Amino acid sequence: MELWYTEEHSPYVRFSIKVDRHLYAKQSKYQRIDVMNSYEFGTFLTLDGCMMLTEKDEFIYHDMIVHVPMATNPKIKKVLVIGGGDGGTVRELIRYEGIKHIDLVEIDEMVVEACRLHLMQTACGLDDPRVHIFYEDGLRYIRHIEGEYDLIIVDSTDPFGPGEGLFTKEFYGNCYKALKEDGILVNQHESPYYQMHANSLRKAHEKIVSFFPITKLYSAHIPTYPSGHWLFGFASKKYDPIKDLDAQAWNELGIETQYYNTEVHRGSFAMPNYVKKLLK
Amino acid sequence: MELWYTEEHSPYVRFSIKVDRHLYAKQSKYQRIDVMNSYEFGTFLTLDGCMMLTEKDEFIYHDMIVHVPMATNPKIKKVLVIGGGDGGTVRELIRYEGIKHIDLVEIDEMVVEACRLHLMQTACGLDDPRVHIFYEDGLRYIRHIEGEYDLIIVDSTDPFGPGEGLFTKEFYGNCYKALKEDGILVNQHESPYYQMHANSLRKAHEKIVSFFPITKLYSAHIPTYPSGHWLFGFASKKYDPIKDLDAQAWNELGIETQYYNTEVHRGSFAMPNYVKKLLK
Repeated sequence: MELWYTEEHSPYVRFSIKVDRHLYAKQSKYQRIDVMNSYEFGTFLTLDGCMMLTEKDEFIYHDMIVHVPMATNPKIKKVLVIGGGDGGTVRELIRYEGIKHIDLVEIDEMVVEACRLHLMQTACGLDDPRVHIFYEDGLRYIRHIEGEYDLIIVDSTDPFGPGEGLFTKEFYGNCYKALKEDGILVNQHESPYYQMHANSLRKAHEKIVSFFPITKLYSAHIPTYPSGHWLFGFASKKYDPIKDLDAQAWNELGIETQYYNTEVHRGSFAMPNYVKKLLK
Repeated sequence: MELWYTEEHSPYVRFSIKVDRHLYAKQSKYQRIDVMNSYEFGTFLTLDGCMMLTEKDEFIYHDMIVHVPMATNPKIKKVLVIGGGDGGTVRELIRYEGIKHIDLVEIDEMVVEACRLHLMQTACGLDDPRVHIFYEDGLRYIRHIEGEYDLIIVDSTDPFGPGEGLFTKEFYGNCYKALKEDGILVNQHESPYYQMHANSLRKAHEKIVSFFPITKLYSAHIPTYPSGHWLFGFASKKYDPIKDLDAQAWNELGIETQYYNTEVHRGSFAMPNYVKKLLK
């Protein structure tokens, strides 16, 4: 049987994965949600036909979105995750004993439902007692919060559809306000390669720079995302992700990871010239 | 008109590029050679149906295969390139005034012919007076050479078909012998992600380690290669690519690059844990 999932990485580039079974297909109030099982990547989740995560390579994304800020400031206690209904980010966060409270604000309850049914590899951490789930629009949730969080992770979809509001100036300004005075904001920041993603990246970066004194980008190699070259944004009121990295302290925590290590941490902030030029 | 080039990155993963025209299709003594023009990546070259390079992203591969060894030892004078009939590696090498002599050993004259016809962006440097082209098997060429080169770059195809001999123990041993006592060997080293590539990578690395005192791997983000995560091998008799990098000296040369810079140089040697584990 030949069943192929295909995603357009640009109007002229297609990435296709051979599927064994289509496990879940629902239209929520916000988006189309699909879960499929594949030969190469195990079970995977798509939202509006865009790849969100696969069982086989999600470790790269979740390692990099969580351990980079945590190794920069291992004293982080209270975290807000916006998006991230699959639970992968929360799964990595709860590995830190020092984290006492995690708020997860996911707009779409059906994403969590789909992952609890078919992707327990990521959803497994959602029942930890430190985790509080709110099914709300992240943009609206954050408006009335001041000085509460040590870390905000924006684990969003792309900047169109339900995730659009999470790439606006209003949102980044409210994140700044919601953070404590040594707070860190990390967000998934699209790819620098294909034109459409590169444009979103440039616009988002400009907006974040206008609020935070320290703003840097870092990369990871994610095989199932367009171009495989994915960026994350690191914005902070106080901590520099290179100068303040305490590699020894993080390594002493003994957290085993498949992608992240403190050398990768440092190396991931080196941007190729064409990306630097894009951000100028 | 819908015309799509498709490459299998694994038996279950396909990468497809929309093609405008098929410009060149010949069967040489060694392989099938195709050049196509695409909407997203400009003109591109495939050998036996595998992507070799595209006009739009070849700068990443050629920057990383050339400038990493050159910035480690900017005194390099005599270089051997094995494979690389497209000319991209030579084009980057001739930008160094210090390089006095380049031997290019390409097994297949028709690759050079195809690139001279349709890919002058890379083939443009092949007529430089310092460049000497030999249409020979690299494995055979190198057997009788001793202590001649400062740098050998193995710019080969994958380890099956005509490139197979360039991944053998005999070949790496002969490279060691052909290098001067402070010589450097750099080779394209496949991807760590998909099983088939990861196996080749592991085997090649083991063989190189058995000859050279210093052996490291470094990565680049190459959108049109399987997984987008591509590795290069750095093996050396004397120079360490991190400790001996003289960033100031390289930057003073004023060579403009689109991908490489000396921060990317350092960062590219940080390997994710799953890659380290693979190499153990």
